[in-house]
Amino acid sequence: MRPVITLTTDFGIDDPFVGIMKGVILGISPKAEIVDLTHSIEPQNIFQAAYALKESVSYFPSHTVHLAVVDPGVGGKRKGLAIKTNKYFFIGPDNGIFSPFLENFQAVELTNQEVFLKPVSATFHGRDIFAPVAAWIANGKPFEKLGEILKKPMTLVLSEPKVDNQRLKGEIIYCDRFGNLTSNISKDLLSKYIGNNLENVKIHLNDKTTIPLVSHYEIGVKNSLSALINSWGKIEIFCNKGNASETFKVLVGDQIEIKRDLT
Amino acid sequence: MRPVITLTTDFGIDDPFVGIMKGVILGISPKAEIVDLTHSIEPQNIFQAAYALKESVSYFPSHTVHLAVVDPGVGGKRKGLAIKTNKYFFIGPDNGIFSPFLENFQAVELTNQEVFLKPVSATFHGRDIFAPVAAWIANGKPFEKLGEILKKPMTLVLSEPKVDNQRLKGEIIYCDRFGNLTSNISKDLLSKYIGNNLENVKIHLNDKTTIPLVSHYEIGVKNSLSALINSWGKIEIFCNKGNASETFKVLVGDQIEIKRDLT
Amino acid sequence: MRPVITLTTDFGIDDPFVGIMKGVILGISPKAEIVDLTHSIEPQNIFQAAYALKESVSYFPSHTVHLAVVDPGVGGKRKGLAIKTNKYFFIGPDNGIFSPFLENFQAVELTNQEVFLKPVSATFHGRDIFAPVAAWIANGKPFEKLGEILKKPMTLVLSEPKVDNQRLKGEIIYCDRFGNLTSNISKDLLSKYIGNNLENVKIHLNDKTTIPLVSHYEIGVKNSLSALINSWGKIEIFCNKGNASETFKVLVGDQIEIKRDLT
Repeated sequence: MRPVITLTTDFGIDDPFVGIMKGVILGISPKAEIVDLTHSIEPQNIFQAAYALKESVSYFPSHTVHLAVVDPGVGGKRKGLAIKTNKYFFIGPDNGIFSPFLENFQAVELTNQEVFLKPVSATFHGRDIFAPVAAWIANGKPFEKLGEILKKPMTLVLSEPKVDNQRLKGEIIYCDRFGNLTSNISKDLLSKYIGNNLENVKIHLNDKTTIPLVSHYEIGVKNSLSALINSWGKIEIFCNKGNASETFKVLVGDQIEIKRDLT
Repeated sequence: MRPVITLTTDFGIDDPFVGIMKGVILGISPKAEIVDLTHSIEPQNIFQAAYALKESVSYFPSHTVHLAVVDPGVGGKRKGLAIKTNKYFFIGPDNGIFSPFLENFQAVELTNQEVFLKPVSATFHGRDIFAPVAAWIANGKPFEKLGEILKKPMTLVLSEPKVDNQRLKGEIIYCDRFGNLTSNISKDLLSKYIGNNLENVKIHLNDKTTIPLVSHYEIGVKNSLSALINSWGKIEIFCNKGNASETFKVLVGDQIEIKRDLT
Repeated sequence: MRPVITLTTDFGIDDPFVGIMKGVILGISPKAEIVDLTHSIEPQNIFQAAYALKESVSYFPSHTVHLAVVDPGVGGKRKGLAIKTNKYFFIGPDNGIFSPFLENFQAVELTNQEVFLKPVSATFHGRDIFAPVAAWIANGKPFEKLGEILKKPMTLVLSEPKVDNQRLKGEIIYCDRFGNLTSNISKDLLSKYIGNNLENVKIHLNDKTTIPLVSHYEIGVKNSLSALINSWGKIEIFCNKGNASETFKVLVGDQIEIKRDLT
């Protein structure tokens, strides 16, 4: 069987850095199947990487090794990290990038230098540490041999929706290529809050704009904002045949709100 | 043997959507070899995708599964489609994207929900329907089991050159990264029209500019438009050491013309 | 075993050209593992491709076939080239792109048309000549059968640092996605010139700016230029949390200098 390794970085693909990591991996684990998740994380935006991973990894087969390198602290004191969950492995810097996966996990600090590329550079641990570690895990090397147990990996405080009697409040957490804007409010939470009839739901954006919730893109009014439940199961704001973010200046961090009284 | 699956979308590669589709495919068909054809189709430009596929798929081995998702109608009433030709399979929305391949084909509407990812989202059938169907076909699942026979898939009217006694008329159908502009006039049609001696052929662009046909890029006059027969066997307008489209404002849809009297 | 083939081009990834080459390769060598090194070489910038290859190929396993196509002379008189070194194969146009690898090598001009795709186009030898040749080499076809021995492949004069009693002079040769600027001065050369204590080294940029050498990114002063030894073992100029090239207008070709008297 071919082990699967995914890559998530802020390296972009204009430089050969991602290809170099793949060369290192294939030298150690020649059967590995390497899948690019994204290399377009905004430089050093650990939050964006955490959200992208959160919504993506569950679509990969069991035992997939997820390697992620968004690493402003490279070469400094931040630790290297490997995480093992029921289904996956995660390899990368200990800076919170894997925060969504810290339930029922084991973690080790990558202290076993035997598997590193030597000399380890001060700027590219993706190549010198994380790629070889991912390849060795793909080869079946026992997880515990990678280093010392790490009880508390770094965690990010990911934005969570807030609920009170009158309002369900959330925010935009991700903007995609089409200018579609994903919020942190899930369909499940929405249904729990206002019931299963989502037909007349209105989304209030930044206390200014009121947006209807529709079932799919084609139904959205053209040149106007609409919302739907997207493929990540979240409320998403979009503009049918247009770019909601650019045209209407909606951005990550903007606030959305649903009122219990739907009228 | 490793089955080959190609991907053509307008998803871009900045978001994890393409990687997610690959995860779904590898979960079903672990031996599949997945090749990105392009993910940079202009959002919702089905014509551009059809032209890109038309000039590309013949370079892939027999039995390749070509998956394409440019899908403005996702979540609405448009059907899901699988096509089988002598050499290939095609999987995607029934919106005309596979128009170039509708000769000697069988088609089914994708109605067999057993192979879908559940729940099927309203926005990402690439992940929930087309990726799993492509993977099952790669695994050898009988084509007929995917759904009901579809006699008439949607077709686009692709732009075709027009010929009369005095003129051969075509248009620009594709602009590449270098600003080179491919027309819909093939070398074969050109030769049929004016004979095999292509040495003194002049291309008339938008009834304004006259462009010489040369044999290869290096021969083109610098800072000036030239034309050649390109790798797709079509007349292409280019600027040696430059970007023809940007510098000379030549665009997809612009008209070209060759007069029978070459003088 | 799966043979590894890397691809380096100036094709970009918006068009299907790279995917087409992969289709050709997989048709001939179905087990090949194809890795994108970069497709974002500036159009026709052979120097940039040579530098990118120079710093990348050593991370790939032995016997990897490195295919590179930056080819302003396509269709003209420039030759097709295959190179065999102790560890790797290189396939591409004979225009100097493989200059960093011309020590202890054998080379052949690609004259054996049997392996070409027919008809060979005037514009896309990556598809018609180089991809099939790379695939056949990956399949184990004897190197000598690809064509006639070529004694002197074209070479580029790559920029080299200059040393005199008072100064070590180099230049910026590569700018990456983050705006980090790699010079041609290696750590080894620097240490030979001023000794192993690199703590107080100052880099003089364009005779105007003086930049401190630090150990890793995090230590660089914010909104200011710093330098470090990067993952290619070279002096690199960067801006902590910023883009050195854009903000400070530092470009490929800019001059850097280290004075022996460190004060």
